[in-house]
Amino acid sequence: MSDSPHTPAAVAVGLVQMRVESPREANVQRALDRISQAADAGAQIVCLPELFAIPYPCQDEDHARFDQAEPIPGPTTGRLADAARRHGVVVVGSIFERRAPGLYHNTAVVLDADGSLAGVYRKMHIPDDPLYYEKFYFTPGDLGFPSFATRHGRLGVGICWDQWFPEAARLLALAGAQILLYPTAIGWLPADRGTSEGDSQHGAWETMIRSHAVANGLFVVAVNRTGREGQLEFWGGSLACDPNGNVLARADRHGEQTLVVPCHLGQIDAVRTHWPFLRDRRIDAYGDLLKRFLD
Amino acid sequence: MSDSPHTPAAVAVGLVQMRVESPREANVQRALDRISQAADAGAQIVCLPELFAIPYPCQDEDHARFDQAEPIPGPTTGRLADAARRHGVVVVGSIFERRAPGLYHNTAVVLDADGSLAGVYRKMHIPDDPLYYEKFYFTPGDLGFPSFATRHGRLGVGICWDQWFPEAARLLALAGAQILLYPTAIGWLPADRGTSEGDSQHGAWETMIRSHAVANGLFVVAVNRTGREGQLEFWGGSLACDPNGNVLARADRHGEQTLVVPCHLGQIDAVRTHWPFLRDRRIDAYGDLLKRFLD
Repeated sequence: MSDSPHTPAAVAVGLVQMRVESPREANVQRALDRISQAADAGAQIVCLPELFAIPYPCQDEDHARFDQAEPIPGPTTGRLADAARRHGVVVVGSIFERRAPGLYHNTAVVLDADGSLAGVYRKMHIPDDPLYYEKFYFTPGDLGFPSFATRHGRLGVGICWDQWFPEAARLLALAGAQILLYPTAIGWLPADRGTSEGDSQHGAWETMIRSHAVANGLFVVAVNRTGREGQLEFWGGSLACDPNGNVLARADRHGEQTLVVPCHLGQIDAVRTHWPFLRDRRIDAYGDLLKRFLD
Repeated sequence: MSDSPHTPAAVAVGLVQMRVESPREANVQRALDRISQAADAGAQIVCLPELFAIPYPCQDEDHARFDQAEPIPGPTTGRLADAARRHGVVVVGSIFERRAPGLYHNTAVVLDADGSLAGVYRKMHIPDDPLYYEKFYFTPGDLGFPSFATRHGRLGVGICWDQWFPEAARLLALAGAQILLYPTAIGWLPADRGTSEGDSQHGAWETMIRSHAVANGLFVVAVNRTGREGQLEFWGGSLACDPNGNVLARADRHGEQTLVVPCHLGQIDAVRTHWPFLRDRRIDAYGDLLKRFLD
């Protein structure tokens, strides 16, 4: 499919799959290095993993860990903004946000290519499972599912657990997003790696990401951590999909890797006119989606 | 995962992937034979492809073709009911429904194992693409997304194009369905078979079906036609997925085939408690799903 003359030829999206360690400064510096490298490789949008600046804090419930949170704007978003401006790239970063005393969020910032803050997204769907005790730390987001205009395209952001909810992807698409970006921290117990149970989990994850691309006719990017932290091993496998759900690029399951993936935004209109799901949604009949269960 | 003592050990679902020809009687008889064979092989629920009784009528717009429609209950549903009762199986059949003069639907019936009518579903999402001129023939459904209690489980039915809409699958899950069944007539131009474009379409289709299983933690079955009709070649590939989105069984892309797939309904609760998406849906923030676009 050819791009129309009114759409950019392609936007290059950088996926920074990275490990995270103590101390914070090493992680932030590594992220800044990766942004620089991705920009040198042509990336115009660079996405970091979920909570890239700190070891995943939710493997147990520890009040002391709230001290790792920071305001937005704050020191880490400031450094990301500097990097965005210096390299002329859009940066999607994920922050443990301290909004007010006793009020914390799992939040992503979108920094435009001039370093300005294009938007803030607070994780709407908060998991709570063994080793992922996020409901203890993060207040559910209250900013809805916005899209953000940037120099390199209109972006929607979800964070990790959000990617299991078709509603979130749909709302971001309806808000005009061309690319959905999911900073992610998903993994397994090391014992699950290579088992059928582990493969099933990993397959389900990829299936959901690809399905959002198909159902909504847009690009979807998931950027995961890699490496062992505590009891968890983050499974890498960051990927980018086109509006037909085809995997454009996929990082290894192990190790750090930066992918730079051209996304031809003109495909969005072409795919959506060939697969006109937005045309045929039965918005007159979806009211019960606002209910918990129909019993 | 073990079944709880309160859930049936497994329900065997029969997927009848069949070709369709003129005249109607040959198709109906073949479907009845397949139901019998599936029941003999242990099936307790048998699903037929979309509009199994007639050649796919929508490759062009022809007023004469409305004569192929029939009422519900009507002659074909009567014969399906007889088969259901005789074999003690639930039958999901798909009918070109004549509801009133000038008012036609693409409708599925669920016949319980005693032959009674457990439910009627009218296709809610109606496609309209070259060679699939369904909006000419079928009035969009007005019965919503119900589930139907049957002797062998609570079933939700979607029809073909419905399977591209996560909203439909979610609503059927919220209505209590344990198994989603999608009578289907999906194919490609013979020239697309074996091309990357064709593979992309087929992959997108499977991805969506599997994603409904994952997102909703239930079983999903898609039953397609096979064979050439006019300009279309239906691509077979009928499949059944478990609540983790794993493909339990998949028919060949070519040729008729009947699969009988055990579905351990106890997995639904086990999977949903491990992947508690229904717990975390943000029903307070989904209101815009009832809008066409947020511009």
